[in-house]
Amino acid sequence: MGTDTVFSKIIRGEIPCFKVYEDEHALAFLDVNPLSRGHTLVIPKEAAVTLDQLSSESAAVIGRVLPAICKAVLEATGATAYNVLQNNGALAHQDVQHVHFHIIPKYDDGAGLGVGWGATPLDMNGAGALAEAIAQRLDADISS
Amino acid sequence: MGTDTVFSKIIRGEIPCFKVYEDEHALAFLDVNPLSRGHTLVIPKEAAVTLDQLSSESAAVIGRVLPAICKAVLEATGATAYNVLQNNGALAHQDVQHVHFHIIPKYDDGAGLGVGWGATPLDMNGAGALAEAIAQRLDADISS
Repeated sequence: MGTDTVFSKIIRGEIPCFKVYEDEHALAFLDVNPLSRGHTLVIPKEAAVTLDQLSSESAAVIGRVLPAICKAVLEATGATAYNVLQNNGALAHQDVQHVHFHIIPKYDDGAGLGVGWGATPLDMNGAGALAEAIAQRLDADISS
Repeated sequence: MGTDTVFSKIIRGEIPCFKVYEDEHALAFLDVNPLSRGHTLVIPKEAAVTLDQLSSESAAVIGRVLPAICKAVLEATGATAYNVLQNNGALAHQDVQHVHFHIIPKYDDGAGLGVGWGATPLDMNGAGALAEAIAQRLDADISS
């Protein structure tokens, strides 16, 4: 269960927002502290704190509307590159305790998300066991 | 339309992967150059290059399976924080020309995604027109 947040208040209309899209299950609006022009948030109306806690139904709705909203953001801003980012936990830069997907246009002047990418090769000795451990924990009822 | 990529080859079984999940429309597997332990990719089988070009049907399937895969990654790794990231365009750090969502556990030692967050307050004078411009470009047929 989610807690009451600024996003709950926006969903209920108690706080205004610059709305981009709304349906029964999802809402999209401009981030009030954008990383770049057109930075848009897409949120489920369901008040889950993190994505792993969100119902698959709400998550499917968010997925369904993301492409069209991304396309509209590009067309309205003229941006051609962008990042979609969804943070879970303070350590991972989550601010508001309600699932939100950032759509962040990236511009030639560098405005947008800063991505730090310190990749190292996969440990091939442990990878099979790790993949199996993740697969085993997937709910048996996951389905498309 | 997408081009033939390493992910097309993985989907067709021509290149092996450490598989975590597969259904008719989606595939999940360990990233071979992980940012942290458990770094997992979730991809549609549809070969779109960027999210704005992906069908809403494929995007809904990805959305639907993400929560369960995130939960399984957390349980298998012991991580409690994570980022979900989806990059579009070279400028936004996209490497493979096939839509992919990264699930990247973030650990206390800093392993995981580096997030650069140079936010500035929204230009309130232009925000209404910008939100309206995005909303107007959203396809009329977008629906849940």
